[in-house]
Order: sequence, then C-alpha cells, then structure tokens
Amino acid sequence: MQNILLIGAGRSTYSFVEYIKAHSESENWFLTIADQNLELAEEKAAKHPRMKAISLDVQDEIQRVHAISKADVVVSMLPAHMHIPVATDCIALGKHMLTASYISKEMRALDERAKEAGVVLINEIGVDPGIDHLSAMKVLDEIRDAGGEVKLFESFTGGLVAPEYDDNPWNYKFTWNPRNVVLAGSAGAVKFIQEGKYKYIPYHQLFRRTEIVSIDGYGKFEGYANRDSLSYREVYGLHDIPTIYRGTFRRPGFCRAWDVFVKLGMTDDSYQIEVDPEMTYRDFTNLFLAYNPNDSVELKLMHYLNIPQDSELMHKLEWLGLFSDAKINMTKPSPAQVLQKILEEKWTLGEDEKDMIVMFHKFGYELKGEKRMIESSMVTIGKNSKETAMALTVGLPLAIAARHILNGNISTPGVQIPISKEIYLPMLEELKENGISFTEREVDYKGY
Amino acid sequence: MQNILLIGAGRSTYSFVEYIKAHSESENWFLTIADQNLELAEEKAAKHPRMKAISLDVQDEIQRVHAISKADVVVSMLPAHMHIPVATDCIALGKHMLTASYISKEMRALDERAKEAGVVLINEIGVDPGIDHLSAMKVLDEIRDAGGEVKLFESFTGGLVAPEYDDNPWNYKFTWNPRNVVLAGSAGAVKFIQEGKYKYIPYHQLFRRTEIVSIDGYGKFEGYANRDSLSYREVYGLHDIPTIYRGTFRRPGFCRAWDVFVKLGMTDDSYQIEVDPEMTYRDFTNLFLAYNPNDSVELKLMHYLNIPQDSELMHKLEWLGLFSDAKINMTKPSPAQVLQKILEEKWTLGEDEKDMIVMFHKFGYELKGEKRMIESSMVTIGKNSKETAMALTVGLPLAIAARHILNGNISTPGVQIPISKEIYLPMLEELKENGISFTEREVDYKGY
Repeated sequence: MQNILLIGAGRSTYSFVEYIKAHSESENWFLTIADQNLELAEEKAAKHPRMKAISLDVQDEIQRVHAISKADVVVSMLPAHMHIPVATDCIALGKHMLTASYISKEMRALDERAKEAGVVLINEIGVDPGIDHLSAMKVLDEIRDAGGEVKLFESFTGGLVAPEYDDNPWNYKFTWNPRNVVLAGSAGAVKFIQEGKYKYIPYHQLFRRTEIVSIDGYGKFEGYANRDSLSYREVYGLHDIPTIYRGTFRRPGFCRAWDVFVKLGMTDDSYQIEVDPEMTYRDFTNLFLAYNPNDSVELKLMHYLNIPQDSELMHKLEWLGLFSDAKINMTKPSPAQVLQKILEEKWTLGEDEKDMIVMFHKFGYELKGEKRMIESSMVTIGKNSKETAMALTVGLPLAIAARHILNGNISTPGVQIPISKEIYLPMLEELKENGISFTEREVDYKGY
Repeated sequence: MQNILLIGAGRSTYSFVEYIKAHSESENWFLTIADQNLELAEEKAAKHPRMKAISLDVQDEIQRVHAISKADVVVSMLPAHMHIPVATDCIALGKHMLTASYISKEMRALDERAKEAGVVLINEIGVDPGIDHLSAMKVLDEIRDAGGEVKLFESFTGGLVAPEYDDNPWNYKFTWNPRNVVLAGSAGAVKFIQEGKYKYIPYHQLFRRTEIVSIDGYGKFEGYANRDSLSYREVYGLHDIPTIYRGTFRRPGFCRAWDVFVKLGMTDDSYQIEVDPEMTYRDFTNLFLAYNPNDSVELKLMHYLNIPQDSELMHKLEWLGLFSDAKINMTKPSPAQVLQKILEEKWTLGEDEKDMIVMFHKFGYELKGEKRMIESSMVTIGKNSKETAMALTVGLPLAIAARHILNGNISTPGVQIPISKEIYLPMLEELKENGISFTEREVDYKGY
C-alpha cells in the first residue's frame, strides 16, 4: 500500500480528496489528511476505510517529521510561506512533495539537496500557477517543434462567479481568499515587455491599464497585469521574446471601479485606523476625503475622483454600501480589513451558487516568414458548493501529479515546476477526461 | 577646558563649527571634528588652535569609544540610523549628547538608562525637527498659561531657494539631500485630524491635497502633509485637539507637477529597471506609458494624466528634459535614482546662490468664549554658499544647546526633545540674536 499525506484541509482540497478516494482501491492507496483543525480533517476523511484524519501543528517538528516519515508522497496545501519546513523534512526522509504555490527563493535553494536525495519536488501545480504552465508549454513547444519563433505570449486567469449567478453590478463574487483579492497587486510595481519596450506600472495605476479579451460563449473579460511577467521569459524559454504579459481576469468595468478603492487608499494594509464604536461605512469612506462639513461624502468622492453622478461606477459604489450608516464594529483595523468586511457582505458566494475559472492564452509567432496567432482558452464551472471550479482546477492537477509520482511516471528529482513534456502531456490528457480542457484556434495575427 | 566632539562633518555642520569656534576662547572649549573622511574634517577644523580633526569610522567600536571618552558633550550629525551605538557609548561613559534627528524607537528605549547615568540626550534639535518645537511650544504654552484652549495647530517648514535665485519654472532647487526630496512621503500613508475628523492620504494622492499659505514679504507657499501629524498631539500636550496638521512647503504649482512623477511611478525606489546603454530620458519616461508606436511620448503622457498641452505643468516637465534624448548612462538604477539624476542636472544650487528656510505655524484657540488665532512665521536666507540657511538653522540650535549643557543650564537627564520652557526660552532668545526670529501676529479665527 502507498501512503499519501495531505497537509491542510481547507475548502480547495475537496476535489483532491475525491480523486484520491476514487482511485484508492484500484491503486491501493491510503490517504492521511492532516490539519491543525482536526474536525476539518475528519470531515474531509468522512470515515472512509482508506482515509484517516490527524491533527497536525506544522510548526511542531516532532509531529511534522513523524507524519511525513509514514508517507510516500506529501501534498502541502499550506499557505506558501509554510512549505519550507515540510520540504526540508521531505528531502531528509526521501519523500516526494507537491505544492500549488509559487516557488519561493527558499524553495529554489533546496534544489541541489532534493536532487541528491532523489526527491521529486513539484511546485506551481494548481490552476494559476499550474494549469497555465501545462497548457501554455504545450502550445509553445508545438510552435517551436514546427520551427516557429514565438513573438508574443499573453496569459490571463480569473476566478469569477459562474454566469448563472452573476447578478450584481460588479459581476464579481469572492470565490477565493478575500484578503488576497483586496491586496492583489499591492506588493510592488508591475513589470512586462511589449514589442521590445519594457513597461512598468505602479500599483496605484494598475487598475487603469487593462486589456479586453472575448471568449466565445462567455463574453468579455478585462485583464489587469500580474506583478512580474518578465521572469516567465526564463521559465518558458522565451529569452528574447518582444512581448510577454500575464494578468488576471475580471468582468469589464470591475477594474475602473476597484481603482476607486486604490485611489482613496482603502486597500492599504500597512497601518491601523482610529475607530470609535459609532463609526459607519460612510465615516470610513470620509476618512479618505478632504474635510468639508457642507458637502456630502458622495459629492466629495465624485469631485475628488472625477466620477459622474449618473455613472455605472457610482452605482457600484452605492450598491456596496460605501455611503451607508451601517456600523463597522472592528477594533483597530487596517483600511484593507474594513474594505474586506464591506465587500464580504455583498460578494460572498451563496451556498448553492457556482464559481467559474477562466484561462486564456495568446501566442503570436513567425513560421516560414509568416506571422500567425493561436488563442487557447479554458472555462471551468463549479459543479456545486464543494466541487467548486477552484477546488477542481487546484485539486485535480495535484492529485493527478501525485498518481504519476506514485506510479513512477514522474521521477526526475529536484525542485521544479510542471513545464516538461513528460509531465504536461499526460496531465492535460487526464484533466480533459475530467472536464478541464482547452479550446485552441488559429486567429489573424494582431500585434501592437 | 571642556571638550566637544562633533561626529560627521557634512555641509550642514558649517554654522555649528563657526559658533563653537567663535566662543571657544571665552568659554575655554576644544572641538574635535570626527569624520570617516579625514580631509573633510580637516577642512572644517582649518588648523584652528582650539579645533582638531580626526578620522573616525563610527562602526569601529574601539575608535568610537576612545573618541567619546575624551568628550564632555557629543554632537552626532550622522544619518539617523547610526546614532544608536554613539548614544549607547555616551550613556556608558556619562557624556551628554545632541542630535538633529527624529527620535527613533531604539533611541526612546534608552531613556531609563540615560536617566540612571545622568546623561542629557536631546534629539530633534535642528530646524525641522528642532526650531519648530521651540517656536511652537512657546506660543502653545503662552495660550495655555493665559487660560486658553488650543483648537487648531498647523505647522509647515520648507527648504527652498532664496527669492533672488528663484529662476526656474519649478521655483525649486535642491538645498538638502536630493534623495530625501525624491522619496519624500513615500514611506506610508499620511495621518492627521481636522475638526475632529481623522484623515488619511495615500502617498499617490499626497501631492494633490495641498494648502496655500501667504507670508508677508515672501509671497505664497503650498504645503503638503507630513507623514504622521497625530503623534504630535502627545508630544505637544494637545491630546484632544480637533485639528493638527504638519506639512512641508513648496512654491505653488510644485506639488501638482511633482504628482506627475508619483503618478507615473518614477519615485519608486523598490526595484531596478532594465537599462540599455542607449537609453535616454525620453525612453525612461516612456517606460511608464502604454505601448503605442504611433503616438509621441509627450502625447501619451498628456493623455494619460489629463495634462493640457499649453499648461505651465507641461512646461515644467519639458524644461526638466523629461522628453530629451540625453543618455541616462546608469547601471541597474531604480526609477527614483534616474529621476534624481535628471533633477540634479537642473535643480542644483549654484556656488554663489543662496537658499531659504521658511517656517510657519498657525494656532487656533478659545479664550473666555472667544475664538482667536495666531500666526507665527520665520524666514531665514542663507548668507553664502557655506553659511546656508540650512546650515544656520540646523547648526545654531545644536551649538546653542551644547553651550547650555556645558554651562549646566540644561541638566535634566534622559532622552528628550526640546519642548520645555527651560530649553526653548533661552534658545529662542539666542537664535534671535543670530538673526533667526519669528514674527507673531493675531489674525481673525478661521476654522474649516
């Protein structure tokens, strides 16, 4: 029997557990689900004969080493900064490991040790990063194998509400960690290259520099840039590519309205505001506007940011309750924490509502003197409140990769991300069988 | 004979050294000028019989302790983060110490130890902070002593070019560390309170939320907010004051134009840009604008930030050379470093040009049911390229305080700032004798 250890039993682990459970008899697997919260782990294990739940404090070295020592492969769904002790133990004990997080510097530094230990340590094997690597590398390799030269690569992913439940003026609901959505982009300037020209966008302009993309059957999406697109030149072997841009999808109109929060300073998480018990949402908004006792908060905001009164944008802000007399009831929050609370009241996905993951790539290339372009897109709609699109697209790649490692199909040791043909071909195949597939089509070349 | 040790011999130490030299015979003082750069120290000591220069690496504990052990009072003109080892040694050796820097947390933590050792450790005794404390506390105490209640306190300081040499479209030249000017305000959100309402301004809006102040004989100034005005409620004993605001002066029109650099992202010091050897100022500007090969850099900028072509603002940008074909010639600079280089070419104060320090306070208060207001202002013009307004207003308070410590007039031990009557009264008196004086006048009360 082979043992799989899942560390972290949060809501995006559902599809991972389902996949392992479904194959556990035929593959002779046993899954241990570990979480600091034992109840959460027990709920996921559901008293299945081939699963068990354990309580695990990952900071406790004895508990951690003990649990890892009994596994053949370890899947860490912990927050990104908590992977390193797990990875270190996996290398020490010769266990393979998978994460859906971006490779950190500290993780990359373990590469040599992982290779010496013969340990396969795959990161970035969820949805974004993850499925984006698999699907992009497939097309990039096809172009290069045919003798083409890649001139342009753009890639967008969005976690959104499914069209059927898209019923608010923002066309958005939280389908993922709300805090990450509130702070998105705030860590530093955005970097990319377009037609050979480097471009940098400061955070406070990020949501005003967007690009519109249409996807057949799903309408229009609006993309804003992710932090560092330049590093993907190396990752994808596109060293001299003139245009590379990675971004995040929202529905059109979202970014211009979100920009209001950025411009006001409401997404700042670096300091605490003074809050009295009577403070309202309206008072919160007023913190960021100039003092004037004769003007309404609405008028000051419209004038400050040049927003027409009868605009869709103003409607979005009013609908959220930004001018309401509801109490904040928080102690010493940061602006970002108050904004998150206001948004959660309106943007929480209902129990019976479904989410949607949208991914889109654009590849421009030159083949035998001719310029060509391929668009590749994937849309996954959640099945229910547990099998969300997010859980499916994060959990299935992890589970499929775990299977290939246990079967010995993936065996190249070292700290890596899923960009080799040996990994992406079988994985894309099996994702397709599970309903996660890409539509590729040739379109007319369009540069900038 | 009493010994004074000056650590750091930069250009703002000139007036300090002159004052000590002038009093050295009558007071029987000896001044040791220490700097990592011995030549710089020697130039300042000028072979005067009561002065000597030494080479001192302040990181070298043996050198540092040795030098401090021979002094009666130590004046540290080092960058703020380097004061702590000096302060620690001063406490250990029972030597008094002065700095013109803001008190850091680490410095404040030494208070108990300083008191135990009987050491007077005064910080914030330059111009801003320094003369602002002295002059503000005098009026605040007068109002309170008369039974008044302070309702409003605003304070601004600016280091500017003297009117006679104010000959460029920005009405600004560097009279102080250019790097600090480029990064001003970027460390975090601004906090103040106005008529009882807390207000927060994010960095990227800071230069759009200004206030205009007139000073008789010197025209109009424009103030933008300093980072944290709220902490001065405690410092000045103004716990429940409804309005407190501290800011920095520029000439009108400066801030709106500076805002262009902020909005573009040119003041960002957190990352390095890719620079090829041919990169020009124009290319630098274009890094922050959307790609479009058919539009000029000028047009893209004007459109992006909504700047009219025939505006004074556009003239300011063109005059600086932001669209010029001059080469950058830097290796891996941050945007802020490139901007500093561009500005230094145009904003450097000429050898025979003079600078100016402008300080302004506004005090609103209620006395016997009546609302009153006092304005207090100070303008100091540099005498020549060595006795600059900056050197005078930083160096003289330090020197005068050193004298009072050596004479025993200032003797309360502990880590402190100059806000007690025993300190500010004699100091303001002597500053006045040296030409640094405040004009106070009653004006009509004007709230918000």
